[in-house]
Amino acid sequence: MEYYSSHIQNLIEELARLPGIGAKSAARLAFHLINQPEETVRRLADTLVEARSGVRFCRECCTLTDEELCPICSSTARDHQTIMVVENSRDLAAYERTGRYGGVYHVLHGAISPALGIGPSDIRLKELMRRLSEEDVKEVIIATGSTLEGETTAMYISKLIRPTGILTSRIASGVPVGGDLEYIDEVTLYRALEGRRAL
Amino acid sequence: MEYYSSHIQNLIEELARLPGIGAKSAARLAFHLINQPEETVRRLADTLVEARSGVRFCRECCTLTDEELCPICSSTARDHQTIMVVENSRDLAAYERTGRYGGVYHVLHGAISPALGIGPSDIRLKELMRRLSEEDVKEVIIATGSTLEGETTAMYISKLIRPTGILTSRIASGVPVGGDLEYIDEVTLYRALEGRRAL
Repeated sequence: MEYYSSHIQNLIEELARLPGIGAKSAARLAFHLINQPEETVRRLADTLVEARSGVRFCRECCTLTDEELCPICSSTARDHQTIMVVENSRDLAAYERTGRYGGVYHVLHGAISPALGIGPSDIRLKELMRRLSEEDVKEVIIATGSTLEGETTAMYISKLIRPTGILTSRIASGVPVGGDLEYIDEVTLYRALEGRRAL
Repeated sequence: MEYYSSHIQNLIEELARLPGIGAKSAARLAFHLINQPEETVRRLADTLVEARSGVRFCRECCTLTDEELCPICSSTARDHQTIMVVENSRDLAAYERTGRYGGVYHVLHGAISPALGIGPSDIRLKELMRRLSEEDVKEVIIATGSTLEGETTAMYISKLIRPTGILTSRIASGVPVGGDLEYIDEVTLYRALEGRRAL
């Protein structure tokens, strides 16, 4: 026997498919939505469909954008000779929020993961290599994550770029700012030691 | 400057309005949805709108349902002389999952909370009193939460029902099954002591 109305049950099931939303959160969300004004729910539904159908990949950097060229790639204020390679648009946004990076980006939409069956051809590497051959690029900063997949991808990209002679760098791994050493895992501590700089 | 496509930004903002979803979860959800097939996103949107417009309150118990009368109120297998009063449809579902309650319900859709400005007329109390006067009810089990609001509501309802002479009971407060005493708060421990039963 179903405890809820079939409409609500369907909604709970749909919401529970979303990442990070378990059965209880899905029920809480569903009841919250049912109690909203009809126009609020309709607006959310429209926004969902519009976002999905309206978004495209930037012709240059492959980030998700509304136009053929994203605002960063079309900006003349940015240094187009420096490309930071990131795994996804959220990582791009994270670096943009620092307000300290003036170059452009390249969004891979993933990382190489033999465990998940994601190979080099499944991420936007071909597009990166095309940019490097067509544009005048001075440096590629590899800013994939400090995870196994991120490191594997970084290694792969650096090998791929080496023959072109373009300078390749990797963002630093280490103790996060404000991080208390005793709470930091050993691998990070070791990385921080390895990456030490003269003062 | 916006870091994301305006479509994505709008979606993130809409999602971040939902309870329990912060800015970071909203961004993660938005990118997840953008990466889903268009029909998946459309199905979620349709389910949302259908649930909101298709759901109504049961004529008897006020729970959210698809029909005029919910499956529990229309079942002849249930004891219609025993009414359990709960705060919302999720609490009803929680008791249904126990599989040990054979009566019917009354859903208040809230609890009295002077702090939040929710008074007795803002919850479905009038509907409960109408049922008690029109139907042949033997017992009202008050199963509102063990919170300040739940207790206030329970007290209010029991006073309201007293003149009718109908038996009113309150579900027990105490140590949860499997609960280790040392981790239980003092109020609960005191309640468990107060509510002790002879063996």
